[in-house]
This record gives sequence, C-alpha cells and structure tokens, in this order.
Amino acid sequence: MFLGLDVLSSELSSWKDKALFTPGPLTTSRTVKQAMLRDLGSRDVEFINIVKDVRRRLVALGDGVEEYTSILIQGSGTFGIEATISSVIPSNGKLLVLVNGAYGKRLLKIANVHHIPVTELTFAENIQPDAHALEQALQSDPAITHVAVIHSETTTGIINPIEEYGKVVKAHNCIYIVDAMSSFGAYPIDLKACEIDFLISSSNKNIEGVPGFSFVLAKKATLNLAKGLARTLSLDLFAQWEGLEGDGQFRFTPPTHSILAFHQALIELEQEGGVSARAARYKKNYETTLLAMQKMGFKTYLKPEDQGYIITSFHYPDHPNFNFQQFYERLSEKGHVIYPGKLSHADCFRIGHIGRLGLADVKALMSAIAKTLKEMNVHISEKIEE
Amino acid sequence: MFLGLDVLSSELSSWKDKALFTPGPLTTSRTVKQAMLRDLGSRDVEFINIVKDVRRRLVALGDGVEEYTSILIQGSGTFGIEATISSVIPSNGKLLVLVNGAYGKRLLKIANVHHIPVTELTFAENIQPDAHALEQALQSDPAITHVAVIHSETTTGIINPIEEYGKVVKAHNCIYIVDAMSSFGAYPIDLKACEIDFLISSSNKNIEGVPGFSFVLAKKATLNLAKGLARTLSLDLFAQWEGLEGDGQFRFTPPTHSILAFHQALIELEQEGGVSARAARYKKNYETTLLAMQKMGFKTYLKPEDQGYIITSFHYPDHPNFNFQQFYERLSEKGHVIYPGKLSHADCFRIGHIGRLGLADVKALMSAIAKTLKEMNVHISEKIEE
Repeated sequence: MFLGLDVLSSELSSWKDKALFTPGPLTTSRTVKQAMLRDLGSRDVEFINIVKDVRRRLVALGDGVEEYTSILIQGSGTFGIEATISSVIPSNGKLLVLVNGAYGKRLLKIANVHHIPVTELTFAENIQPDAHALEQALQSDPAITHVAVIHSETTTGIINPIEEYGKVVKAHNCIYIVDAMSSFGAYPIDLKACEIDFLISSSNKNIEGVPGFSFVLAKKATLNLAKGLARTLSLDLFAQWEGLEGDGQFRFTPPTHSILAFHQALIELEQEGGVSARAARYKKNYETTLLAMQKMGFKTYLKPEDQGYIITSFHYPDHPNFNFQQFYERLSEKGHVIYPGKLSHADCFRIGHIGRLGLADVKALMSAIAKTLKEMNVHISEKIEE
Repeated sequence: MFLGLDVLSSELSSWKDKALFTPGPLTTSRTVKQAMLRDLGSRDVEFINIVKDVRRRLVALGDGVEEYTSILIQGSGTFGIEATISSVIPSNGKLLVLVNGAYGKRLLKIANVHHIPVTELTFAENIQPDAHALEQALQSDPAITHVAVIHSETTTGIINPIEEYGKVVKAHNCIYIVDAMSSFGAYPIDLKACEIDFLISSSNKNIEGVPGFSFVLAKKATLNLAKGLARTLSLDLFAQWEGLEGDGQFRFTPPTHSILAFHQALIELEQEGGVSARAARYKKNYETTLLAMQKMGFKTYLKPEDQGYIITSFHYPDHPNFNFQQFYERLSEKGHVIYPGKLSHADCFRIGHIGRLGLADVKALMSAIAKTLKEMNVHISEKIEE
C-alpha cells in the first residue's frame, strides 16, 4: 500500500550512485548522509549546540580563533556571496573586483543589481590577476573601499594568489572579500596572514557536506561596521550573526538536515587529518587524472603552474568524431559524472577532483574515458606534443 | 578509527527523535528522510526530471494546471517571500499588506528594506482582517498595485479568508500575493477561485518534507510582467523561473537532498489521499488536542470560529507555579517539543498539529502535559468556565 517505501527499499539494495567529478554537489560519505535521518527542532537545545560546534570548527579551519567568527546563510554559495556584498559595503563605498572567470563576473553582477559602485580589473581566463595592477588601481582610485576576488576560479580551475592581493588591499586600508567557494577546506587558508575580512564558501564543497547553505568567515571588527547596511532581509549578514550570537538560533528556518550532515562532515574532515590530509588526497586525485588524461592525448587549458587541484579544464580533443554531449552521456551511463566547460572562448570540459572520491574512483573514470573514446572512434593519443 | 561511523551506528539503534509539535521543521516520515541517502549531480538528467515532477505536482495541488507555474527558491520560506516581493513589484508600484500578526509585519519589513512604497492595514492579532476595510483602502488609494496577506498566521493560528480578499483585490485590478507558508497542503486552496497571482509556501510544512527551500506558485501571465524587476540576484523570481523552464536547471546550486526528500513527501501525500486526507488527519490532531487541553483547564487565545487546525495558541495557565521554560523543558525531556508564543500582548504557548504525527502522538503529548502539570504542582482544571 505504501508504494514509496517499497520503491525505496528495492532501489536501496541496487543503488550505487554515480561518482560526481563536478564542482558540487559532490559525492559525500554514507555516514554524512545518514546524519540526516533525524528531525530536530530548529529551536531545540540539541540543534543549537550542533550549530555552535559547526561555527566553532569553521573558524578553527581558517586559523581564525579569537578575531574571526562564522555565519551560516541559508541557500547556495551565491546566497552567501550576495549576503556579504549587499551587507558590508556602505552606500558611499566602492567595490573593486578582480575578474578572470565567470565567478568573478558574478560578483560584478551582484554589485550592479544592488547599485553598488563597482569597478573591474579583468584578465584573461588563463591568467592570474596581477597584484601590481591591483596596486595601481587602488592608487589611482581612492574611492575604492572594498576589494573582492575569487580564490579558485571554477571556470578554469586556476588558483589566484590571495595572500599577495591581501597585502596590497591592506596597504590601501580597504576591506578584503575572498570568494573561496571551491578552495576552502582543501587549500590551507590563514585568514590573518591573507588579511581577509570576509571569506565565503559553501556546505557542499571541500568539507564534503550536502548543499543547503553557505558560510561566511568574518573578521569581527569589520563585521561590526556592517550593522544596518544590509539591502535585503534574508541576506542580512550582520543580523544573521546577531541572531546566532544571541540565542544561538537562526532568524529564519535553517536547513536542519543539511546542518546535521555538515557537522558529521566536519568530524570526518578532522578524522581524515584535517585540511592538509584532504589536500593530499585531492592532489593525488588531480595528479592521477592529469597523467592519465595526458597519456590519452588530452591537453589542459591552463599552464601547470597556475592549475589548482580542485578542478581541471581539458580542451575538447581535436578529432571529428568527438562530441561532448555523447562523451558526457556515455560516461554517465558508466557511472561517472563529469562537468561541461564554462569558458567564454575555448571548447573545454572539466573534471573535478574533490568530494569523497579516491584513487580507485579516479582510475575507474580514466578507464571509462579510454573505453568511451574507443567506442566513439576518437583517436587522439598519437597527437601528443612533447 | 572512524569514530563518526561508530557513534552514528550506536546512536541509530537507540534513536527516537522527539515529536515536533511546532510550525516546522516538522517530524517527517522515515522514508522521506531515507530519500536523502543519495548524491545526485544537480545538472544530471535524473535530478532534472525529479525537479520537473516536483514542480508539476505542486501546481496540481493548487488546481492551477495550465495557468500557473511553480518556482523553487533556495533557502527558507522567508527567502521565497522576499523573492516574490522584491521581484514582482515595479518601482512605480505600491504594496498594501493586511496585518494581524508577526508574519504580516515581516512582509512590511521586506517591502521597507527594498524601499518599496507600502501601506499597512493592521488588525488585532485575534481578528481576521476585514474585507470591507480592504475595499475602502483600495478605493481611497488608487496608487496601490499589489496586495499581500498571510493565510494562516502562525503567530496565533488564525485563518484569514483569502478567497474573500481575492475578489476585492481583483475588482481593483491589483496583483494578489498570498503567504500560505503554513496552510498550503493542509487547506485546499483553489488558486483560480481565490484569484491568487503568487502563493508562497515552503518545503518543511504540510507537504512534510525537510527544510531547504521555499516554493512560489505563480500565475504565468502575471509572472511574465516581472522580467527585469528583481532587486537581487539570488532571489530573482523571474530569472529562477526562466532557468527552470529553460534547461530545467537551477541558476545556483539547489539543495539536492532536500528536493529528493520533498519529491518522496509529495508521493506520500498522494498516497495518503491528497490534501483532503491530510487535512482530516491534522484536524483530528487539532480536535483531540483542543478537547484534552480544555479538559485540563487550558484556554485558547482565539475564538473557535477563527482558529485553524495548523497550530493553536494557549494562554499560560493562571497559576503561580507555572513557568513556561520549565514546562517546555520537562515536555522536551519526555520526548515532545512544543512551541513558545509570539504574541505582542498576551502570554501564550503554541502546539502545532502538522507533520507526520497522528492520534497516538497527540495522546502521548496530552498525557505528558498532564503529568508535567502534576510535577510542577500546577492545578488549573477546577478553573474551567463553561
């Protein structure tokens, strides 16, 4: 009679979800998902204590104890970024954004929709924004009060030198906003050393939780300046902080189950050995992928020295039989989900290296790619240039 | 070595979460939670098809096939309301809000933060806003273009006559926004008969899913007028719709697990017999609660004819030994979570009647309340007035 249960039970026995080689939502551990098999009241003391522990652990991950705090924002990562941009820049402020990809452009879009004066410093998608150019821009426009940059640009997988920018930003007494969406938890980030005022990331990236919220690590002294500046109700960063600091509760219903999963994910991150151990696993995934892909004849979009170990962009192979949609679907049928490209000027696809995936998963994907190329009669290996 | 797993396994065997007699997050079925034991890519065809089915089922629940569509918005219910208010009122528009509780006031707050001209028609918290007063207000201020009202005011549990207002709103050619957060799925709502343009509710109410997103049922013809009006990026209702209608994907990472749970919850709603069957179960929960509480000497805040079967406000008993915090904690220790009051002028607490709870759960709560009153030496039953 209860069809839902029957379907579920029978499916459970045969389920093996596809491995997600994407920038998120990612593959998570079974125990992280099992942490969601509970219904907790959002104002109940048990839940309040879990939120408190989550917030404490996040600040510790950024080595920010004492000077920093953390704020959870319902919604996706973009909600956390919009909460920050729309809550911390006063009406007489001006934002400078370093752009080398789609996520940098999104920061501009957010500033524009809120009518925040904004200027951009745009670079090619395969180039790290230059700290000297930033220095010059800040020198020539003293109206700039805030600087925002993407740490790991998921568009390409490039890693931007946030510590270098931080020194320049602080030399000009500006407030420094870092979108570390896809890097936090996998790259060690010392909030103080990088001079970061606000860092944003989300639940479904390298902490290996499920989607449902973003989080902001904020320097308390700077956050205190944001009182009353918000341009929305739901995304008011300061008010959200006040609520969490006050009675420990969210102003509006939190995603209780996602937070339970995230708490478990933070425990598992600690058990794995923290950020450095996770970084090592992801790096191994990346290196294994890179080697095997190059062996098959694929070429990376970025130069190796700019490339991070979060996600890699590969050029479409230069062969008439290659069709990305077909390639994607054939891999998906074999149980591996890769990611399309997002570049403005080159045909690429992407492979992510993050989430609860290890060497065996990467090797399985590489075999599947080799097999798929054969099926599609795409021959590229002879084209390797040394 | 993997402590997380051990802790979880041992806890799972002894877990019995408290019953949530709250306005949400609610107690959900085990099968709804089990639907979250998967990791699906947010751009994968399986997930896209589930989102499509969720959207179709939502429109059907409001009898809105053909003329209406549904849009999911990441975040809590308030995010869906803010998305609507900040996306559909043009800069030369003016909003009128009918207020008889805290959630009506929240609508005003949202309009204010976005600098949307707004006027309020405020009534006492135990009074339904008067349709004639609405008629007069619209007559005397032709600048008003939009009217917003709460269907089930969770502040008290009062049900406002949205169909009556709808006729007045349409007679004045205004756009009609109904916050049906805590009523949709438990009260039959005919979108067309009520002349509703936008109805907002959330995943963790009467559909009995878990928190993570809100949804908006929108009349397509009216929604089409909202293109380019949004005051934010994340909460742009029209752009979100465009994305979902286009390639079926979300613009920004959706809470995949919450959506899987919600899909299962919609299937279970259908299996229970749809909105009318669910309404019957909740009504029975309400009636059983009311009778037992009155027998114990508790008095309701509202008159019975204004009271809905979603949540009921009870006055604190007039006895010197009663202390709400103690009462709440003792009930919580016994496995039942009730809800504090939110009234501006009376000491009340609330008991919810919604979620995956039935007669046995209600009876268990009533026994626990009787026992707790005895423990606290609170004697009120002799004070019943007929």
